[in-house]
Amino acid sequence: MPKKFLTVSKSKDVIPKILSLIDLPIEEEEIDIENALNRYTAEDVVATFDSPPFRKSLVDGFAVRSVDTKGASPGNPIPFKLLGEVHIGTFEHRRLNPSETFFIPTGGAIVDGADAVVMREYTEIHNDEVFIMKEVSNEENVLPIGEDIKKNDVILERGERITPRKIAGMRNFGVKSIRVIKPIRIGIFSTGDELRDEGPLKQGEIYDSNSYTLAAEAKQDGFIVSRYGIVKDNFESIVSMLKKSISQNNVTFMSGGTSKGNFDFTVDAINSLGKPGVVIHGMHLSPGKPTVFGIASRKLIVGFSGNPLASFLVYRNIVRTIIFKKLGLKLKKKVIFAELSENIPSRKGREEYIIGNLINKDGKNIVRPMFSESAFISPLLYGDGIITIPLMSEGLEKGERVVFELW
Amino acid sequence: MPKKFLTVSKSKDVIPKILSLIDLPIEEEEIDIENALNRYTAEDVVATFDSPPFRKSLVDGFAVRSVDTKGASPGNPIPFKLLGEVHIGTFEHRRLNPSETFFIPTGGAIVDGADAVVMREYTEIHNDEVFIMKEVSNEENVLPIGEDIKKNDVILERGERITPRKIAGMRNFGVKSIRVIKPIRIGIFSTGDELRDEGPLKQGEIYDSNSYTLAAEAKQDGFIVSRYGIVKDNFESIVSMLKKSISQNNVTFMSGGTSKGNFDFTVDAINSLGKPGVVIHGMHLSPGKPTVFGIASRKLIVGFSGNPLASFLVYRNIVRTIIFKKLGLKLKKKVIFAELSENIPSRKGREEYIIGNLINKDGKNIVRPMFSESAFISPLLYGDGIITIPLMSEGLEKGERVVFELW
Repeated sequence: MPKKFLTVSKSKDVIPKILSLIDLPIEEEEIDIENALNRYTAEDVVATFDSPPFRKSLVDGFAVRSVDTKGASPGNPIPFKLLGEVHIGTFEHRRLNPSETFFIPTGGAIVDGADAVVMREYTEIHNDEVFIMKEVSNEENVLPIGEDIKKNDVILERGERITPRKIAGMRNFGVKSIRVIKPIRIGIFSTGDELRDEGPLKQGEIYDSNSYTLAAEAKQDGFIVSRYGIVKDNFESIVSMLKKSISQNNVTFMSGGTSKGNFDFTVDAINSLGKPGVVIHGMHLSPGKPTVFGIASRKLIVGFSGNPLASFLVYRNIVRTIIFKKLGLKLKKKVIFAELSENIPSRKGREEYIIGNLINKDGKNIVRPMFSESAFISPLLYGDGIITIPLMSEGLEKGERVVFELW
Repeated sequence: MPKKFLTVSKSKDVIPKILSLIDLPIEEEEIDIENALNRYTAEDVVATFDSPPFRKSLVDGFAVRSVDTKGASPGNPIPFKLLGEVHIGTFEHRRLNPSETFFIPTGGAIVDGADAVVMREYTEIHNDEVFIMKEVSNEENVLPIGEDIKKNDVILERGERITPRKIAGMRNFGVKSIRVIKPIRIGIFSTGDELRDEGPLKQGEIYDSNSYTLAAEAKQDGFIVSRYGIVKDNFESIVSMLKKSISQNNVTFMSGGTSKGNFDFTVDAINSLGKPGVVIHGMHLSPGKPTVFGIASRKLIVGFSGNPLASFLVYRNIVRTIIFKKLGLKLKKKVIFAELSENIPSRKGREEYIIGNLINKDGKNIVRPMFSESAFISPLLYGDGIITIPLMSEGLEKGERVVFELW
């Protein structure tokens, strides 16, 4: 029969404790921006000039001195002399004199002397004369220099993930290459004599899912994964795989063998690798209480519960937070308030994670908790995100607003 | 000066029209599930057995016949004969007789004859006797067969994107390989003599951002991208690049040259490739009105506005919808209701997209529209998602609930 947990810690204590005990290599490399999608910047990226760098027209129309349009209307068209057309990407060096105009397309550079643009809809052209039928004010339809982004504004902070939109922002300033953080390596294996990788199951056996799921989560976050599959549930096999994984990776995840009859192997195996060994031995979390954190040579070893739901939630909420913080990466979560569709009972003194479905109805964001046993897989398949119930809550009531993290 | 648009279409008409005129190859391949992250399934995946496949214990405790626990309490402990321990992954073939018990860890298979499990917290062990101090009812702490997922339940629909959570679900059923849809190829280039890829800018010049951003968006969606960079703004160069891209790709994106002085080149170049040529020539959209859809040999050519914000929004809201629909892929958007922080004026008769910031405050989801000129890049850099203003709306009011798509 298993021993009881040695210690049970709060997740908010676990994170700083582990951070102080581990090292992760923070290495940088310079890559072409074309290959930078989903990487993390190793540097703040700043605007190298005011954007836009010149005054631009906001419309297709005619650049004018606004004073010359005073009183213009459909009943009182005012004639202007058309000097020509400004082309996108070129700059017109002639200066406007009174009652002169240039055609400027949207985005075109405003000619000197002009202070406004009249939309083409309010004009009529006869030969080289343009009749303006609308009065415009100073700066109307003109985009000032630096109105969008000022020189030296930070457009990407160190540690931000590079999205297509961030690429748009960097390319606006001509960025061709960028320093990014090299991904760390994570070794992952599952333990358990009941685990099968494929083929028919005997009674009581299950398929290994955690080594695949944790690998996919870690890849999604941009890390390099070595998945070692299933390891036999005995001290020697676990120690041998731990040694291999630690030598080849920066972090090791193992799953299974943390709460059951084989619990001792995991703890003993980690402890056999040297001090400090197992430093966290159970958390005030549901699901995910039987999670083990160990350290060998300042490298992190996480022993996840064999339960897929628990290991997924502990990775998402605790382990990746530790790794991101240690590397200085920014974790951007999509968090909203949503209204609970029903009561959630909870036990005071443990943090709880419940997967929920988001329902958009009658202008409301409603979250329906997917109550489940911890061995269920359906919340992972069909859920939309995670409700967190704080440590000291005694439960949440129907209609209450809760914090919901969309995944 | 540019010609006016030939026709201006509503986005809801554009999508079915284009779908009827184009072909995309829907090819499948079988891959290892380990490499399936972010691919799209080519088949429904169904549960091959009831899950869980056997009755399981929900707790660490002692399997009993519930009738034998009647009246048990701390003041009235009832003795049971301890027959042994069920190990995870094994199945105990002995059957419980009255007042016998087995220890079962969480997740362990319930022994025949037992109909409930007493948590170890309510027991005391003395040699081979277990004293039960709590009455349990029939099925208490027992997870029935198939309680999570029933055999033949669809766990992944065709066209769904494969997330780490879907991998967990498939691995529960031992899925080792999966048929996925082969990614299509998209060729992308920018046109415009004002565009530079790098180096210092002359007055009026800008850096090419669209070919990079559209490439990143398309890659994020799982397509294979050939980015051809900047093409000279003349008929011959555009035709030559279009021919090359069409021969090498399933879809071609070009950006720029749709609204400005060079508009005609785009339209003429597409039309020169054969019938039907340009089929959509402007949309009732803001930003993104000057978007061109052309067809050559039933292959789609999209002429995006040179404006990064417009081309991004048109890709997100129109073009990817077309491609996903044609391939039968499911587009999962994270959509919520949010309260507007201020009025948004709009012109009736055009659909508008406005980028916004989501602010979680006092239990409310508030969206602050980032009013911007269409040439702005800051909404892409700093926004959180997209507010859509319907075609016939005359604007939205402060405090109104709007649909907000988080990106």
